Amino acid sequence: MIYFALAFVRRESILPPCPPQESISQEHVQQLGQERRGSLHSSGGRFVLSPKVQGLRNRLIKLMEDHIYPVENELCKLAQSDKRWSIHPEEERLKELAKKEGLWNLWIPCDSAARVKQVISGQTRDGNANTAFDELLGAGLSNLEYGYLCEIMGRSIWAPQVFNCGAPDTGNMEVLMRYGNAEQIHQWLVPLLEGKIRSGFAMTEPQVASSDATNIECSITRHGDSYIINGRKWWTSGAMDPRCKVLILMGKTDFNAPKHRQQSMILVDINTPGVNIKRPLTVFGFDDAPHGHAEISFENVRIPTENILLGEGRGFEIAQGRLGPGRLHHCMRLIGTAERGMQMMIQRAISRRAFDKLIAQHGSFLSDVAKCRIELESTRLLVLEAADQLDRLGNKKARGTIAMAKVAAPNMALKVLDMALQVHGAAGLSGDTVLAHLWATSRTLRIADGPDEVHLRTIAKLELRRRAKL
Amino acid sequence: MIYFALAFVRRESILPPCPPQESISQEHVQQLGQERRGSLHSSGGRFVLSPKVQGLRNRLIKLMEDHIYPVENELCKLAQSDKRWSIHPEEERLKELAKKEGLWNLWIPCDSAARVKQVISGQTRDGNANTAFDELLGAGLSNLEYGYLCEIMGRSIWAPQVFNCGAPDTGNMEVLMRYGNAEQIHQWLVPLLEGKIRSGFAMTEPQVASSDATNIECSITRHGDSYIINGRKWWTSGAMDPRCKVLILMGKTDFNAPKHRQQSMILVDINTPGVNIKRPLTVFGFDDAPHGHAEISFENVRIPTENILLGEGRGFEIAQGRLGPGRLHHCMRLIGTAERGMQMMIQRAISRRAFDKLIAQHGSFLSDVAKCRIELESTRLLVLEAADQLDRLGNKKARGTIAMAKVAAPNMALKVLDMALQVHGAAGLSGDTVLAHLWATSRTLRIADGPDEVHLRTIAKLELRRRAKL
Amino acid sequence: MIYFALAFVRRESILPPCPPQESISQEHVQQLGQERRGSLHSSGGRFVLSPKVQGLRNRLIKLMEDHIYPVENELCKLAQSDKRWSIHPEEERLKELAKKEGLWNLWIPCDSAARVKQVISGQTRDGNANTAFDELLGAGLSNLEYGYLCEIMGRSIWAPQVFNCGAPDTGNMEVLMRYGNAEQIHQWLVPLLEGKIRSGFAMTEPQVASSDATNIECSITRHGDSYIINGRKWWTSGAMDPRCKVLILMGKTDFNAPKHRQQSMILVDINTPGVNIKRPLTVFGFDDAPHGHAEISFENVRIPTENILLGEGRGFEIAQGRLGPGRLHHCMRLIGTAERGMQMMIQRAISRRAFDKLIAQHGSFLSDVAKCRIELESTRLLVLEAADQLDRLGNKKARGTIAMAKVAAPNMALKVLDMALQVHGAAGLSGDTVLAHLWATSRTLRIADGPDEVHLRTIAKLELRRRAKL
Amino acid sequence: MIYFALAFVRRESILPPCPPQESISQEHVQQLGQERRGSLHSSGGRFVLSPKVQGLRNRLIKLMEDHIYPVENELCKLAQSDKRWSIHPEEERLKELAKKEGLWNLWIPCDSAARVKQVISGQTRDGNANTAFDELLGAGLSNLEYGYLCEIMGRSIWAPQVFNCGAPDTGNMEVLMRYGNAEQIHQWLVPLLEGKIRSGFAMTEPQVASSDATNIECSITRHGDSYIINGRKWWTSGAMDPRCKVLILMGKTDFNAPKHRQQSMILVDINTPGVNIKRPLTVFGFDDAPHGHAEISFENVRIPTENILLGEGRGFEIAQGRLGPGRLHHCMRLIGTAERGMQMMIQRAISRRAFDKLIAQHGSFLSDVAKCRIELESTRLLVLEAADQLDRLGNKKARGTIAMAKVAAPNMALKVLDMALQVHGAAGLSGDTVLAHLWATSRTLRIADGPDEVHLRTIAKLELRRRAKL
Repeated sequence: MIYFALAFVRRESILPPCPPQESISQEHVQQLGQERRGSLHSSGGRFVLSPKVQGLRNRLIKLMEDHIYPVENELCKLAQSDKRWSIHPEEERLKELAKKEGLWNLWIPCDSAARVKQVISGQTRDGNANTAFDELLGAGLSNLEYGYLCEIMGRSIWAPQVFNCGAPDTGNMEVLMRYGNAEQIHQWLVPLLEGKIRSGFAMTEPQVASSDATNIECSITRHGDSYIINGRKWWTSGAMDPRCKVLILMGKTDFNAPKHRQQSMILVDINTPGVNIKRPLTVFGFDDAPHGHAEISFENVRIPTENILLGEGRGFEIAQGRLGPGRLHHCMRLIGTAERGMQMMIQRAISRRAFDKLIAQHGSFLSDVAKCRIELESTRLLVLEAADQLDRLGNKKARGTIAMAKVAAPNMALKVLDMALQVHGAAGLSGDTVLAHLWATSRTLRIADGPDEVHLRTIAKLELRRRAKL
Repeated sequence: MIYFALAFVRRESILPPCPPQESISQEHVQQLGQERRGSLHSSGGRFVLSPKVQGLRNRLIKLMEDHIYPVENELCKLAQSDKRWSIHPEEERLKELAKKEGLWNLWIPCDSAARVKQVISGQTRDGNANTAFDELLGAGLSNLEYGYLCEIMGRSIWAPQVFNCGAPDTGNMEVLMRYGNAEQIHQWLVPLLEGKIRSGFAMTEPQVASSDATNIECSITRHGDSYIINGRKWWTSGAMDPRCKVLILMGKTDFNAPKHRQQSMILVDINTPGVNIKRPLTVFGFDDAPHGHAEISFENVRIPTENILLGEGRGFEIAQGRLGPGRLHHCMRLIGTAERGMQMMIQRAISRRAFDKLIAQHGSFLSDVAKCRIELESTRLLVLEAADQLDRLGNKKARGTIAMAKVAAPNMALKVLDMALQVHGAAGLSGDTVLAHLWATSRTLRIADGPDEVHLRTIAKLELRRRAKL
Repeated sequence: MIYFALAFVRRESILPPCPPQESISQEHVQQLGQERRGSLHSSGGRFVLSPKVQGLRNRLIKLMEDHIYPVENELCKLAQSDKRWSIHPEEERLKELAKKEGLWNLWIPCDSAARVKQVISGQTRDGNANTAFDELLGAGLSNLEYGYLCEIMGRSIWAPQVFNCGAPDTGNMEVLMRYGNAEQIHQWLVPLLEGKIRSGFAMTEPQVASSDATNIECSITRHGDSYIINGRKWWTSGAMDPRCKVLILMGKTDFNAPKHRQQSMILVDINTPGVNIKRPLTVFGFDDAPHGHAEISFENVRIPTENILLGEGRGFEIAQGRLGPGRLHHCMRLIGTAERGMQMMIQRAISRRAFDKLIAQHGSFLSDVAKCRIELESTRLLVLEAADQLDRLGNKKARGTIAMAKVAAPNMALKVLDMALQVHGAAGLSGDTVLAHLWATSRTLRIADGPDEVHLRTIAKLELRRRAKL
Repeated sequence: MIYFALAFVRRESILPPCPPQESISQEHVQQLGQERRGSLHSSGGRFVLSPKVQGLRNRLIKLMEDHIYPVENELCKLAQSDKRWSIHPEEERLKELAKKEGLWNLWIPCDSAARVKQVISGQTRDGNANTAFDELLGAGLSNLEYGYLCEIMGRSIWAPQVFNCGAPDTGNMEVLMRYGNAEQIHQWLVPLLEGKIRSGFAMTEPQVASSDATNIECSITRHGDSYIINGRKWWTSGAMDPRCKVLILMGKTDFNAPKHRQQSMILVDINTPGVNIKRPLTVFGFDDAPHGHAEISFENVRIPTENILLGEGRGFEIAQGRLGPGRLHHCMRLIGTAERGMQMMIQRAISRRAFDKLIAQHGSFLSDVAKCRIELESTRLLVLEAADQLDRLGNKKARGTIAMAKVAAPNMALKVLDMALQVHGAAGLSGDTVLAHLWATSRTLRIADGPDEVHLRTIAKLELRRRAKL
């Protein structure tokens, strides 16, 4: 209680501090705390950071500034070369650094961590092993707390995986943490938590509108103690990565079951015969090497039955559980992406001249910057609120606000980045800045994890339900 | 500490509950509290209500539903009749009810209340009088807490004054509470706090761009122990009201002083000879009777020198202090205004048919409703955040976020109301619904208390300052 | 042919010349013509004026500048006074002037004029009378040609009726010209053409969504040689005018006929017993006196059977024919309305200072003006194109482009006027400029003659039909 | 005259007929002509096609449908392979076909063609040679007439060069036609007109804001009978193409001359020593192979003095002349690009299902399609109007409308394409449809040939000048 009260005294708003440059000094935090002590008894809350999260945030910002921004160019260069589908050694070095700094697997929510520990401890007596394992289970943060950190990672496309916080691995780990059995956890979750392997999520299919998961046609047919998989998947992000070892595949085990009981999820070792990676897909010309988005055909792929997750017909249920936090992680990162855009456009506008004035002094620049800032701040608040509702009310009750965040965040980021592009002129379009790539990635997120249209429908339905029965 | 902890346990998000209809049952609140007890130790905060504020909010919603919405039509009718410039007795009755329910002067922040008590107590020994007076000083709420309540009042144009929370009276009372001396407090603040009189704020002038206060031309010239005022003011809202007894006037006492030291504020008894109310102004055809917006000429108006506020040359300083909370009150009310629009448009869309379908089933209705909801929620969060920053960081540090809220709120409300108008067809344009009037009032707020353009400039300047020196 | 070739040589683009100020000198026109003679043989056409239309346009602009803008304030003053529902003598004087200048009834298309002459000449031998009558039949312009002129009238809310070109009279005259018999033409059309009486169109009903005309509930029941009308209508514009003598009413003669054969239109003398004008409606706070928008109840109103138009069950058919040109007239006027807004905002921005700069030098003013101009020009072209298609292809084939113009024009005008309002600050909201009134009138036109949503549906359907059968 | 009159009789609106599918039958054209004969004497014009242009348009559409759309995929495949910087033989075959069909060099305006013939004929007596040469000089079309055709080419990124109508070659040929001497015409223009070689335009520099051409830093220094060039250029489009033989380079011959007399343009043989193509730039992730956008360094590049265009210090003047039509060509193509997007999104929406409905039946699809169509039509009209003004009034007087078209067209196309992308889901983002590439190319055009901001400034200045002197 005392700890909590102190935390409250010291907490500071997330909003004023802003991108790359600044780390808030501890002194300043304490001073603020004293100023505010008077308001301790006031009820009501707001988005402020606990000292613990503030500490993590400061370390994270520092690592980004000292180690990630400086190597972005080099990582990009490899990813555009002939050796694009290989891993730069720097990346693995940065991962070790992140671990050492206690910035590893920060995305893991306490309850998922708890379940895994429980499953594991039923199996092992070895206390030591557990301690080492505990260190892989993140910092015990709520989704809201992670929001303050995930945002920072969103400032660089290279950052999330350095902290083992990138999609689709986090979503896949989440599935294993929530629904995996001890065997599956040992075989696949542990190396994923360690960052030794990567994973893909094989759900979307080229021939049907996969935003409606009931359309999926890939078949998983039982033959004795195996399943045989046949189908075609695409946009299996991460599957091009040489470290990718496992796919979670969604298919149908029973085409005759009720609509939402036909689907199952199954773990597929990517080296199983019949798994054919056909080609990398591009996103506005980017192939996102070495991560990549693969089209994969599954031709009579034989998988042991124990690889099924949770059981036949539970695929839809898992998909629902998987998406909540994953969607929000994307939104959190988009806030950071937009901050990067803000920072870059201002830097450019105050350092480049045309027609005898700085770009910042031309036309509607200032007015547009202000509008971007307004939209950025309100969207950040919406994302944090959604994270908080997820923590307090759970996936289902929070789904309206999550859907709002999922629509608002990419649209906001695209607006900010588009302005940043315009301010950069032709340079912005090219590979010489991160802007075009950030834009393309953000554009993807108006489609991935449910297109805007599906989320708008969800929001509208909830709105109508609140007022009346149609 | 225990109290606070309990408060935390029980607090509930502001967001899910929504307009007119529902009051949240106490049972439900407790139940939620229990579900959440586990997360007590989590650090970080968010926008949730204390039981105290939740209680006030429930009483407020109930009073609106039982007593205000039902008489809106009747109040409007009088305000459009020949007797438009008189007060409906119902209004005074409702004010008594609000007092009885403890919903009076809720806008008053604790620190302003404290100052007044101090000034008063220096003068009086009469404890009893003080107790009665204390009841006029609101509920000791922070700006954030008031935000949850003020929003509800914004659902009806008639509500704010019923709770003695309407502009410009709140701004004027705030000025008197912060800067008035004992004499001024007794003479003018007390009857205002009691709701016995009303007041106007005479600042804007027709012949100059008054958003830049240094443009003001009205003169306040010292002659012995009087000031003589000469000038023309307009948009002095409330000055048409028969109960209006006093104006706070901004003019120049010294045209040769430094730019921001020329202005002074002075209390003007509205019945002083030379104060000529020329005419009521209209806002998109509405004259907002009986409140009204007056054009007033001041011709050799003689005022005792003791009516000056704070001293000569302090007018600019007072204006700065006056605007912070006042601007936010407008924003809070606009959130409620938008909620009213949401509710009405949905009600209409699910009850009216064209071309064999409900309006809700036509075209882009659902998609547009969802977009309105997203913008409404994010703007609400921005307004609450600004209120919280005002509480925690003060007027000056919070000015950026206040400016954001001041731009975002009316633009959002206008978007929602415009859609509601469209859904109502011709009925929406007429006086038969509250929509056109709410729209006109909201449109005013893109200009009043600083036009959008001025706030955007503030935001942009802060943004640039964060990044670099120009 | 020679005439046409010369016309072509001399014609000049409609686009560059702009609002109130300028009249293009004849000299300039000839000079341009000579410059262009070389391109005579080039095929292809564009929006350029014939000398005839250019002459009319110059006279029209001059009359507006010399006689209409100068009296706007005075007309407004009467319309806001106690005598609001009376006609200012200046208005009738201006009508005589317009007749004398040959600027009367310019809206009448040649084919409608031809039909009326034919009907009339079947009845009369009196050549002289016909000559006088011919002068009432306009200038024999196409819809496209009228577009260049109607636009000019749209710059003032008072102008259209001065030229006998205002709604709903033009629509009602059009109905009588196309569908009226000799009797009806003599009794009602002639005085309307002369500007001696005015008329109303009673279609919209408060209790149903009248944008779907099949919803209409007003009954027209045959009793011997009379019809008995019962029902309630509102938004019967013009019916408050003391000169209004006749209504065209849409009701149902047969509730059991096929959906589009139930409706009939009938002429109703406004002084018939049972026609009760209940009240004027407001648009935002404007009642548009002395014209007005009436709510009218019809209680057992007995009308002679010969007042039916075209015959029972033909109402829907007439409604379709009535709307095409009428809708476009609104669009043409909106172009002029927007030009007025452009002119006023620039005038203001280059004459008013704040923070040491002209408003034109602040923020995004220039960039926003440019965006307004782009939208204004493209919308003007769309309206002219729609008028041209109406001339060349007829009502039905042109309906897609007319629908586009009907959506684009008010939305564009509202955007321009909103910016003009913002530039004018509080003055713009009041009755001291024409802006708020022009805005309110323009807003109406997103609903009147079909709300945006209905037109968007039409456009989308045509689009899909062009590509494939659904 | 007779010819012209007949042309007028037969002409048909550009607007209703629409993308790929349909060719309008000659029968239909004649029929329409007859219907309209009655309106011959009407004055005023509009956007309708002459039979000549209609004929070219039909042939063009047919060639696109029969030969270009079918090979798009194959051309793309090569351009994404290891052999990306080579030319597909199909492309050269298509160019021959275009010549044979009389669809070659259609962009050439009569006046430019006339100048070239004059220059050439001064040099040669060989009548036969001239006849062959004449065939290279296009079809004698006005800019307006070319607009109807260029639009069609914009539907495929591969089309413009098939008809020798692609940037930057057209702009470079235009420069040579207007400003080249006989020698320069023979050496460079003729092979360009023949399609044997390609060219680049080296103007933009990485280190300065090149939208302000006075910023340019590349030096062209006279040494005896040579110029020595030193500098760095980027975004020299086309320079990666193996057929590219010549660059028009803009640099400074005199850093001390008045601001707009420092620049010169010079012809640079791409094989001159010191011309180093550093790398291809990407636009979003596209390198636009085999065309490409090059960064080039010029290190002591020695060029004969006779390669200078028009003379030292005339570079700015040439740049001005070059841009007018070139900008409009981009706009024309963007209209076609948007039509392609419209067609594709509708095709997809009526053939794909999600949640038991066609995509066309979901959410705001129809309403959004209608809004796209409105914006597309009005922008098309604006582009055609600008082309017509360019023909009638010349580059300088038309510059306002050209600037409007230059802002409106890419923004409109991006809006339409963005919707098309969204409707296509993940497929739209990938290289499997043309959408992402069309989007990236269109985005470029908000920057190339002057960013939006510069054009908005031009428009605003003209607007203010029309009203008053600042």
